[in-house]
Amino acid sequence: MNNTYSFIGGAHGPWRVDGMQAVTGAGLDAVACLDVVNAPPAQLHNKGTWLLHGFTSNVRYAVRDEVNALKGIQQGLNRPASTCAALIPIKKTAAWWALAQDERRAIFEAQSHHTAIGLEYLPAIARQLHHCRDLGEPFDFLTWFEFAPQDTPAFNHMLVRLRASKEWTYVEREVDIRLSKRA
Amino acid sequence: MNNTYSFIGGAHGPWRVDGMQAVTGAGLDAVACLDVVNAPPAQLHNKGTWLLHGFTSNVRYAVRDEVNALKGIQQGLNRPASTCAALIPIKKTAAWWALAQDERRAIFEAQSHHTAIGLEYLPAIARQLHHCRDLGEPFDFLTWFEFAPQDTPAFNHMLVRLRASKEWTYVEREVDIRLSKRA
Repeated sequence: MNNTYSFIGGAHGPWRVDGMQAVTGAGLDAVACLDVVNAPPAQLHNKGTWLLHGFTSNVRYAVRDEVNALKGIQQGLNRPASTCAALIPIKKTAAWWALAQDERRAIFEAQSHHTAIGLEYLPAIARQLHHCRDLGEPFDFLTWFEFAPQDTPAFNHMLVRLRASKEWTYVEREVDIRLSKRA
Repeated sequence: MNNTYSFIGGAHGPWRVDGMQAVTGAGLDAVACLDVVNAPPAQLHNKGTWLLHGFTSNVRYAVRDEVNALKGIQQGLNRPASTCAALIPIKKTAAWWALAQDERRAIFEAQSHHTAIGLEYLPAIARQLHHCRDLGEPFDFLTWFEFAPQDTPAFNHMLVRLRASKEWTYVEREVDIRLSKRA
């Protein structure tokens, strides 16, 4: 399945772990490196100290104007200047998942401005969302970010704003893993 | 993962296959029986002639009023009188999945009345949706229906109405498998 990605924390991989913070709830075991492989866990030999996996999918909340705005400005992963990355696994509460689609959308955007905030930081902060709740994983989402070192303050500011939002009152576990590309 | 279900077509299982129709696109190999197991394929010994699997998940389109209306009237699976069932695997087009959330919602409900039509047939026709597109499966959805024999004409009528909808112009493969509970 080429939409499935494994994030392997351990002793190997092209990304050096610069810091890991348990923002909400339990953290993850400390590791030195991270590898990202476009394959499901069953196909991997090295399973590391911990292994998280998820799939990329269709948009769940973005409306047409937002999709067009994002597509008009965002840039892809793997830019040469993007030597910094972050992996932020998040789990939302059962109350969040029991909400209807319109209720989740209202909190996500009308009240929390999730997409609007993310747009302000494009194209500097590239982003790829991976879903994993439906796989029985410990987290619901694994969001991967890539940016240049000089954009780290902007990235931090974006996170502060998102974490202050109504949507984040439904986050029961969040880990913030900062990475830099090994030379 | 207790949200994952495998549908195993083969020589065994509590459901007898009364008919299989390739409604749109390629069908599935003829089988005599169907088994439904609340486990992923990797945990199964008997993989049958074909095996489809998917997961139950949160609602993707239903708004609060619709969720409340559904919950107020729907009944669960496994009712003693529900000796008839249907498994309807569906794959939608790439064009569908490229639509934004508001565009899909508009086609799904405002134009196609998907939830409203389903509501008219409750509680007689019980329904459980399984998602599988994100698993790299050949179909996007596996919908399971259960009903009493005397409600078969109503079930057929519901399908005719859904298949005549705008939403169904985005269906590129559909198989209709009818089942009855073995004595």
